Amino acid sequence: MWTTNERQEFAACLAAMTSYRKECQKAILKMHKQGLRTDDQLAKLNEAINNNANLFEYMAERGPESFGPENANMFPKINIHFDDQDLNQLDACLHSAARDWTSLGDAERGEVYSPVIAALHKYVQPNEEVLVPGSGLCRLAVEIAQSGFIAEANESSFVMLVMAFISMFSDGAQFLIFPFVHQISGLDKFEDSLISAVFPDLSSSLADPGLSLDPPSLIESSRLVLKAGKFEGVYANVSEKFGAIVTCFFIDVISDVQNTIINLHKLLKDGGIWINIGPIVNHNQSVGFFSPLTLEDIDRMARNAGFDIIEQSRIDTSYSQNPKTHVKTRYSTQFSVYRK
Amino acid sequence: MWTTNERQEFAACLAAMTSYRKECQKAILKMHKQGLRTDDQLAKLNEAINNNANLFEYMAERGPESFGPENANMFPKINIHFDDQDLNQLDACLHSAARDWTSLGDAERGEVYSPVIAALHKYVQPNEEVLVPGSGLCRLAVEIAQSGFIAEANESSFVMLVMAFISMFSDGAQFLIFPFVHQISGLDKFEDSLISAVFPDLSSSLADPGLSLDPPSLIESSRLVLKAGKFEGVYANVSEKFGAIVTCFFIDVISDVQNTIINLHKLLKDGGIWINIGPIVNHNQSVGFFSPLTLEDIDRMARNAGFDIIEQSRIDTSYSQNPKTHVKTRYSTQFSVYRK
Repeated sequence: MWTTNERQEFAACLAAMTSYRKECQKAILKMHKQGLRTDDQLAKLNEAINNNANLFEYMAERGPESFGPENANMFPKINIHFDDQDLNQLDACLHSAARDWTSLGDAERGEVYSPVIAALHKYVQPNEEVLVPGSGLCRLAVEIAQSGFIAEANESSFVMLVMAFISMFSDGAQFLIFPFVHQISGLDKFEDSLISAVFPDLSSSLADPGLSLDPPSLIESSRLVLKAGKFEGVYANVSEKFGAIVTCFFIDVISDVQNTIINLHKLLKDGGIWINIGPIVNHNQSVGFFSPLTLEDIDRMARNAGFDIIEQSRIDTSYSQNPKTHVKTRYSTQFSVYRK
Repeated sequence: MWTTNERQEFAACLAAMTSYRKECQKAILKMHKQGLRTDDQLAKLNEAINNNANLFEYMAERGPESFGPENANMFPKINIHFDDQDLNQLDACLHSAARDWTSLGDAERGEVYSPVIAALHKYVQPNEEVLVPGSGLCRLAVEIAQSGFIAEANESSFVMLVMAFISMFSDGAQFLIFPFVHQISGLDKFEDSLISAVFPDLSSSLADPGLSLDPPSLIESSRLVLKAGKFEGVYANVSEKFGAIVTCFFIDVISDVQNTIINLHKLLKDGGIWINIGPIVNHNQSVGFFSPLTLEDIDRMARNAGFDIIEQSRIDTSYSQNPKTHVKTRYSTQFSVYRK
């Protein structure tokens, strides 16, 4: 199941997690020498880092076993090199954690996840299977399952998978995280980078605000299914299985959009619903000197694949940014419902 | 004056300019094969590319002589390799051209340049020398000169320097440019990438709306002085020369902010004014895992260097984006006036 490359890649992630504390302390020492921060500021920064490090070390310890006991020892543990990209992945992880599993993400989840769940209730029968490719930290999939559907979450990034595992199965373990400590650009003052939140926060469901989220029991009862691996591979031999598919900021990161849409169509039952939300900003670097896709192109590809467009609107939202920054990016995303 | 490295770097720029048309045509052919665009769309794209290419080829032809006749033949012309980064510089150039020298930039120039010129009139005597480091395509420096001061524009990027030269001394030559043709992310439809504008447009001055801009006569009369080269080097042996310095989105791109601020202080006469505007988003990649500077830090460094803060406010603006995009970044920039 795991290639040698994948095992190396994940081992580098684990090494970055266990080295996060030391790497940050080196950077803090450098700041101290430069005299850029007061002792009080450095102490606060140190505390923030130590809290984030507690989470990452917990992740590194539990990560391998989160893929099943048979996988716990297959990742190399010595002579593993990690680079800045691995550290940047940890930064991205903190942002995703804030968005999906802390109170800092309440507004963004309300803007984006609520309309998705409302559309599922409008167009899809209860107890239908709903696929969420690019599920990240799985909050949307958990909400969908909690809301009365059977949610299947698919994610390929190791570090996201481990973080999702921690957020959902931590047996009550909670962490104080400082998600914006590495990005203080556009801030008035240093202290604005030290916003913290409790992770994970399972205190209430968007779909059913009176209810606490309970991922372990959703998995126990097979209402939430987790599938690790690349979308194209995992679903290559599956067809006409799902009543709905939800892609949320997912089309923006894949390289072959046309074939992915054809694949989504194949995976849906007749009459099944594809809900897409995102700004169509292609983050994939391999697209060359011209960015190839517009919202109109997605619609055309969907029609060519056999979809009808049954609903479209715009949803204004941000994506995981420090609430105190003076550099604000707003996405006027397209919210589309297509029917097979 | 020019190092071998600098000559190689500029030669690569020139090669990218002369190859732009062919590189884009290759990309268009690929799109044609993929069937992603209609023949009509490809024809429109081709026309846009050809117009941009006309400008770049004109730049490549005039570029070397823009540094003086003695420099015209010192750049290598054969076996020159350029890469994607050189092509991306051309894309950045088109954006800057739109912002500084076309009607597409009217709103942004009104938001940012107008308050700068108003503050100069408030705090600085007419005919004083005003330095503009990181002057880019020099529009702000030209407006400052036109407005009654003596403006000295300093820029280190070759491609910006050549573009500034073309915009100011083109002997009436004008180009139709399509500045957003390479960035169609977040757009509804392909056609939204084909916004065009006449470059350069010298039809009116911000500081004096009744007046057309006339850079050649400003230079002729020594009211506008252009200094090519890196800021630290060019001004190493200059002190107490300027009545004012204006840094506009400049602090955001330099690596050693502290020493730059000390240098600004040294360059000003007693009582001289430093005007800074920008979001303090550090784009410099060498800053490491923690972004070191906030707005508060700039103020502290300014005070340590000997400046008094005499005025601060916020200016909301964007920076050179396609007006039709659904991904909008707004900068709530700090506008500060410091006195030596």
